[in-house]
Amino acid sequence: MEALLTELRAAVGADAVLTDADVTSAYQRDMMPLAPSGSPLAVVLPVSTEQVQAVVRACAAFRTPIVPRGAGSGLSGAANAIDGCVVLVTTKMNAIVEVDADNRLAVVEPGVVNLDLRGAVEKHGLFYPPDPSSYDWCTIGGNLSTNAGGLCCVKYGVTTDSVLGLEVVLADGSLLKTGRRTVKGVAGYDLTKLFVGSEGTLGVITRATLALRPLPQAPSTLVATFDRTADAGAAVARVVREGVVPSLMEIMDRTSIEAVERYLNTDLNAGAALLICQSDAGGEAARRELAVIEQVCVDSGAALTYATDDLGEGRDLLTARRAVLTALEVYGAWLTDDVCVPRTKIAELIAGCERISAEVGLRIAVVGHAGDGNMHPTIVYDASSVDELERARTAFDLILGLGLALGGTVSGEHGIGRIKREWLATEIGPVGLRVHREIKQALDPENLFNPGSMFAR
Amino acid sequence: MEALLTELRAAVGADAVLTDADVTSAYQRDMMPLAPSGSPLAVVLPVSTEQVQAVVRACAAFRTPIVPRGAGSGLSGAANAIDGCVVLVTTKMNAIVEVDADNRLAVVEPGVVNLDLRGAVEKHGLFYPPDPSSYDWCTIGGNLSTNAGGLCCVKYGVTTDSVLGLEVVLADGSLLKTGRRTVKGVAGYDLTKLFVGSEGTLGVITRATLALRPLPQAPSTLVATFDRTADAGAAVARVVREGVVPSLMEIMDRTSIEAVERYLNTDLNAGAALLICQSDAGGEAARRELAVIEQVCVDSGAALTYATDDLGEGRDLLTARRAVLTALEVYGAWLTDDVCVPRTKIAELIAGCERISAEVGLRIAVVGHAGDGNMHPTIVYDASSVDELERARTAFDLILGLGLALGGTVSGEHGIGRIKREWLATEIGPVGLRVHREIKQALDPENLFNPGSMFAR
Ligand SMILES: Cc1cc2nc3c(=O)[nH]c(=O)nc-3n(C[C@H](O)[C@H](O)[C@H](O)COP(=O)(O)OP(=O)(O)OC[C@H]3O[C@@H](n4cnc5c(N)ncnc54)[C@H](O)[C@@H]3O)c2cc1C
Ligand SMILES: Cc1cc2nc3c(=O)[nH]c(=O)nc-3n(C[C@H](O)[C@H](O)[C@H](O)COP(=O)(O)OP(=O)(O)OC[C@H]3O[C@@H](n4cnc5c(N)ncnc54)[C@H](O)[C@@H]3O)c2cc1C
Repeated sequence: MEALLTELRAAVGADAVLTDADVTSAYQRDMMPLAPSGSPLAVVLPVSTEQVQAVVRACAAFRTPIVPRGAGSGLSGAANAIDGCVVLVTTKMNAIVEVDADNRLAVVEPGVVNLDLRGAVEKHGLFYPPDPSSYDWCTIGGNLSTNAGGLCCVKYGVTTDSVLGLEVVLADGSLLKTGRRTVKGVAGYDLTKLFVGSEGTLGVITRATLALRPLPQAPSTLVATFDRTADAGAAVARVVREGVVPSLMEIMDRTSIEAVERYLNTDLNAGAALLICQSDAGGEAARRELAVIEQVCVDSGAALTYATDDLGEGRDLLTARRAVLTALEVYGAWLTDDVCVPRTKIAELIAGCERISAEVGLRIAVVGHAGDGNMHPTIVYDASSVDELERARTAFDLILGLGLALGGTVSGEHGIGRIKREWLATEIGPVGLRVHREIKQALDPENLFNPGSMFAR
Repeated sequence: MEALLTELRAAVGADAVLTDADVTSAYQRDMMPLAPSGSPLAVVLPVSTEQVQAVVRACAAFRTPIVPRGAGSGLSGAANAIDGCVVLVTTKMNAIVEVDADNRLAVVEPGVVNLDLRGAVEKHGLFYPPDPSSYDWCTIGGNLSTNAGGLCCVKYGVTTDSVLGLEVVLADGSLLKTGRRTVKGVAGYDLTKLFVGSEGTLGVITRATLALRPLPQAPSTLVATFDRTADAGAAVARVVREGVVPSLMEIMDRTSIEAVERYLNTDLNAGAALLICQSDAGGEAARRELAVIEQVCVDSGAALTYATDDLGEGRDLLTARRAVLTALEVYGAWLTDDVCVPRTKIAELIAGCERISAEVGLRIAVVGHAGDGNMHPTIVYDASSVDELERARTAFDLILGLGLALGGTVSGEHGIGRIKREWLATEIGPVGLRVHREIKQALDPENLFNPGSMFAR
């Protein structure tokens, strides 16, 4: 493979081709502990679309698989290396090419970090909604490829709802431009939204035109605690029914609450479940929205509710929610699942997770984007114990089965990658799988991009 | 082909297979006067997914093309018959299968008329946003297949933004289920949004799960008139810049205004351009939004502005906008174009249309969804004059070229069909076209569905 390395060096420069195993190992895995990974032949860091094209052509000529990679913050193993592959890392393609405030759009390279884009457009009074919790390090390219969600999806949708167009390097090295710069457009198939969420299996995104929104008002915040999880679940369903659309509606179960209380050394005064809601409608409108939600919570049996317009206080209250994963590390390693169920089924999902926790004998904390029904039951285990790891995996799968049984999906936002392939097949069935294969075969006939991820060819 | 007809009769019943040319001619064309059409072998009206599957299998066996068809209100010739084809009409599959108010979704068959769905969900306090002007007769299946827009897209997006999942009969008769019932979901490729907007070229949609929203507040309305088109265009761009998102923002140029004044026998007191905006934010919030827009209009040089909370009055003001196409019939036949440009380019588009009008010597009225930059320059011609028809076609193409030159797209919402094939190729370029062909080949290898529409294989 020395010949391929020579071509890669010619394509991106010798400095941008990493082959030292000590160095490349940092690009071998994402944040999902259970997914398989292998040793790459090389890690390449192109700085331009042309360089990406040259890398793709070189790899195609040598039939060497390419694993596209952003920041590696993924939670499905989708960016994990396979033996002998080339990992194509986009982090050096991180220019914000353009912010067109008059047309409310931005053009960016894939390696731009989500938070950097947020900051850049905020200066123009604009807002890029998708806000995965990992926003301070994940890339737009990764967000696009996983169709990332976040906290504000409940009001503003997920990544696909903010994309106008893409540039993608295809398996033969040619450059496909999809979409447009206009708000609307129906010229041809919606290739943009086909590439969004395709997890690096169809090409390398090298540029994106993103739709922006006006910056919302500063948020007002409401917290409600419940002694019974079922009541919190019922409250969420009733909020939906009332027709209020908060800009954030998160839930934490008892296990999450306890971990955070311990970690932050605080008393949240919460019993079995805590709901945090925000409204960014501003002033009177925000107060009215939160008042409706507060009343719903009280009617649903909330033990305590607390509303505030104070920004700092609102941030502090969200801190508890954001701290959950870190807080769980006090107990051991975490393995976070990602199911999305109809919003009427949240309480049943939490109850089911309590049962599964008892069954496998491991702590399971449930946190999630309640307003969307997108829950992240997080299993805590001892990473040094093979037995606990196995039980964690069992719980992970039981939760997916539960999510499906409740009419949900096996992935709300983290994707399939190398960890949920069999579950994808179960969810979409044989015809769905066949169509996936047909599309992959059509666009990537040599199976160059991320082979074996998402589904087996 | 008697053998195929026998199979079709076995599939859907003899009564649901129409072959009499007098009858089938009603299913031969949509509402686009310039697109080619042919004589179908038969028109079939299945009542169930199973019947659709049987029809598709029969046609596949006989290699007879299928043209799926809803109400035939399309404006691109995409539902036009081709010689010897089977037109598969979905209008008898018009059940609203389910309205799940608690999860804010509806499950419908494709033949449901848009307005019927709106009415049915409104009873539950819910709202199905996509509202093409043809909503009192176009079908959800047609809306999905064209990714239809409408008046409220400016706030609520187009059809693809309201779809959670589909059932589609594929070219081999198998049934593909895409998507889910949950708000979020990233399990596999986004096949749902690939079929949305595919104009009947990839399969027959037999069922859809649609996302609903809370019913908005009753709208408040603002009208502003301008003596210079450029000022109206500037006002639209400034509204975007101000960060206000109205629930409707339509524009009419001088020619539209004059036609409507004549047709409705009224004086709109409008000069060169009229903007109609609505806010459905309710009460104080709506008044605040419209006040910002009003101020922007005044600052941009509006001759006159008028705001009202009165529902009836608001409806009357919208009547003028809705009457444009009909009003133009006083002068002759209309041929409506559909370009979408960046919102900063609206005035340039209107000015360009005035030039083109002078060039071809035909009246061109510009109406459009200003808030999205989606404009419908509508050419008036004498249908009995071959020369005028040719000049109308010339103007139609000049407008598309202008739209592209302004950084826009050749279709904002009506689609490509049989009238804009060459323009699609121009807009998306050779790589884009190749990918379209690859996807079509993958999903419909025998070119069974709507062959020759959208692009040539
Ligand atoms: C603490 C924590 C919190 C998180 N919170 C959320 C959350 O709230 N919501 C959410 O959705 N996710 C969340 N995630 C998951 C993860 O951050 C997202 O999936 C994110 O979008 C991944 O971006 P990345 O740049 O790290 O991509 P990577 O992990 O590097 O890659 C992800 C996928 O995208 C592909 N890819 C990356 N760049 C490209 C490109 N340019 N072209 C083609 N394919 C490409 C890869 O091949 C891979 O399939 C969280 C993760 C962590 C660790
Ligand atoms: C006066 C007027 C105003 C209009 N205003 C608007 C507007 O504001 N916005 C807008 O977007 N459009 C508008 N249109 C265009 C048209 O109404 C839309 O394109 C509408 O979505 C077509 O629906 P239909 O049921 O009539 O579909 P048809 O015209 O019958 O078919 C349209 C396309 O969909 C395909 N199709 C239909 N049903 C299925 C199915 N079940 N499975 C697969 N393919 C299928 C057909 O093959 C064809 O390609 C307007 C039309 C008129 C005449």
